Amino acid sequence: MTRIAHGLADIVIAETRLSRVDGEAGELVIGGFALEELAPKAEFEDTLFLLFHDRLPSALERRRLSGTLKATRDISPATLAVLRAAVTSQAEPMDALRMGLATLGLAEDDLHKTELQAEPAEANQRRALRLVAALPVLVGAIHRLRQGLEPLPSDPELDHVANYLYLLTGERPSPESTRALTTYLNTTVDHGMNASTFTARVVASTRSDMASAIVAALGALKGPLHGGAPGPALDMVFALQREAEASGRPLARVAEAWVHDQVDKGERIMGFGHRVYRVRDPRADVLGEAAAVLFAKTGGSELYEQALVVEDAVLRVLAERKPGRVLQTNVEFYTALLLHSLGLPSALFTPTFAVARVAGWTAHVLEQIEEDRLIRPRVLYTGGTDRRFPSAA
Amino acid sequence: MTRIAHGLADIVIAETRLSRVDGEAGELVIGGFALEELAPKAEFEDTLFLLFHDRLPSALERRRLSGTLKATRDISPATLAVLRAAVTSQAEPMDALRMGLATLGLAEDDLHKTELQAEPAEANQRRALRLVAALPVLVGAIHRLRQGLEPLPSDPELDHVANYLYLLTGERPSPESTRALTTYLNTTVDHGMNASTFTARVVASTRSDMASAIVAALGALKGPLHGGAPGPALDMVFALQREAEASGRPLARVAEAWVHDQVDKGERIMGFGHRVYRVRDPRADVLGEAAAVLFAKTGGSELYEQALVVEDAVLRVLAERKPGRVLQTNVEFYTALLLHSLGLPSALFTPTFAVARVAGWTAHVLEQIEEDRLIRPRVLYTGGTDRRFPSAA
Repeated sequence: MTRIAHGLADIVIAETRLSRVDGEAGELVIGGFALEELAPKAEFEDTLFLLFHDRLPSALERRRLSGTLKATRDISPATLAVLRAAVTSQAEPMDALRMGLATLGLAEDDLHKTELQAEPAEANQRRALRLVAALPVLVGAIHRLRQGLEPLPSDPELDHVANYLYLLTGERPSPESTRALTTYLNTTVDHGMNASTFTARVVASTRSDMASAIVAALGALKGPLHGGAPGPALDMVFALQREAEASGRPLARVAEAWVHDQVDKGERIMGFGHRVYRVRDPRADVLGEAAAVLFAKTGGSELYEQALVVEDAVLRVLAERKPGRVLQTNVEFYTALLLHSLGLPSALFTPTFAVARVAGWTAHVLEQIEEDRLIRPRVLYTGGTDRRFPSAA
Repeated sequence: MTRIAHGLADIVIAETRLSRVDGEAGELVIGGFALEELAPKAEFEDTLFLLFHDRLPSALERRRLSGTLKATRDISPATLAVLRAAVTSQAEPMDALRMGLATLGLAEDDLHKTELQAEPAEANQRRALRLVAALPVLVGAIHRLRQGLEPLPSDPELDHVANYLYLLTGERPSPESTRALTTYLNTTVDHGMNASTFTARVVASTRSDMASAIVAALGALKGPLHGGAPGPALDMVFALQREAEASGRPLARVAEAWVHDQVDKGERIMGFGHRVYRVRDPRADVLGEAAAVLFAKTGGSELYEQALVVEDAVLRVLAERKPGRVLQTNVEFYTALLLHSLGLPSALFTPTFAVARVAGWTAHVLEQIEEDRLIRPRVLYTGGTDRRFPSAA
């Protein structure tokens, strides 16, 4: 009997120095830093540099990296025309983003150059940074076009993260908002060998180009089994709060009753449970903390309090009703809370995830270039045999 | 010690009824038919139906399938604009093709619809056929634009394969040419779990959409370790023939001397050797036979004779110099011969490979939808630990 490694769940495919996910302990290490040590303190440029170079940048190196991102983030009129056509055709933001990303090479002479392995490391890093730099500009343009507004040019005084918020809102963001979004991007920048990262590495393993690998990864991130759906987790909080207000009952009681009902019906609770983590997702804590800090400075802590009440109720009921299973709060719940508080509509949650993860994808592609080995598993044939083609059919 | 399955070479990832590659025996089975039984006899629509339905179509079913392909193959003005911009920017045909393919959804309401698993099988098959139908139209447009010509509209009287040749050349092809190209497409339509097919399945495993999976696969096919480079195999024949003519020596002697020289220098001979096949690649025989038939009817057999002489010389010298290794003629050698004879420039060899393989990709995606399991391997972390972020950096 041939053993089939369905989903490759137990297969170790490669070594990486980029991140380590310990689902049993609930720990995430990024470039040697515990998540909670890195994410709330680092600038996004720090994290990006760390992934590419395995150390933090000096102040000068960080300024240079920021300058490179600023200098390469603009998109061409041809790419903008694709985004315009996509939005006009009612494409979802992730589809529009993939279409735009696929055309990024239109203005460059070498973004799609073949033979990753034949190029010097600096050239591949430059191509990687071009993609990292352009993704928020693409998302910003898509967001504006969907509202019937013209995309904004980047603000040359704003770094990567602040500029993303500016392109979305048209206003220079507060330091607190920029810090909160930076913490989110740091938190979700890499996460071991997930399906989109694996996709990027498989494409890169053929020695194809950087843009092909990242476009492919974006297609995988879009999948509901991967990119997740942070929107519904927040919608749940809103719906329960509305019900509490309408009925005059305490939110905790309303939430408990709803969770019992969901468990009775065998429904999943969005925002709870994860394929890898057996304990609380460490990203949930970091994002929860970031949301608390943001609310303390900018107000709006009511939603945060409500979310805590709902989370508490969900965890209590799940512990009671599913004693054998570990169903902890996952990253989606606090992602939704944080991004909503920054003014992002839920349609932008997964695109914003991509704005973070593109750094991890490109860093993994750079690792795969070093590995330089084609990824090509086998398959078990279970079809027919010895069929004959009808003569003169 | 954690065992790392580099390249997944020994890992069986799934079951398939689509094709079976037996590298030891040199056998390829497609949908239950030995390659040499199916490829020279079937219409491309037969093979496509076979992959989707595990049986050959009736005459009526084949006509219907042909009608569906004709009805859905047109590309929108927005996609054409992307191709135009890509060609203007000097994009390579494979890059232009990926950009155009990524934008195909622009005219459809549902091509990129998420949640493959939530859709009825017929809807997913319809999306698959749309992509199969459009690929040759995209390649035809790119080819014309690269020559400074306007893309042609499809000829409604021509089926899938003949229409592809028409879009490239502007002339209705001879039955012999259509048959030869059909045999090529049948021969390369599927080949077990290669890297591009695997890419498509990984993306589909997230429940993303059909177009995302196929765009990703196209990016992997572009890689030199995967898509191969049929061009150089033919260039070798041309170069040796020129040298034979210039020197007045027999082609066989010139070829032998050149192969000795290449082996001395440790260079690989393009068109010989394959990662899987330990004996002669069965596709080489089928394509060689197709080329012979084409030449017998249309003339031009001189090149074919020369290719045979070179192949014979290469195999003799390799057997003598590398007695321990099996280096047989692979599919690239006869691919180049056949496609060149059909008038295709070498820049179109890999795009034409994609025109065939898209049928296999989409069929594998349909299989993966049935499997419905996220593909997500593990990774071994070998980076730093317990790093501390500098305070007030």
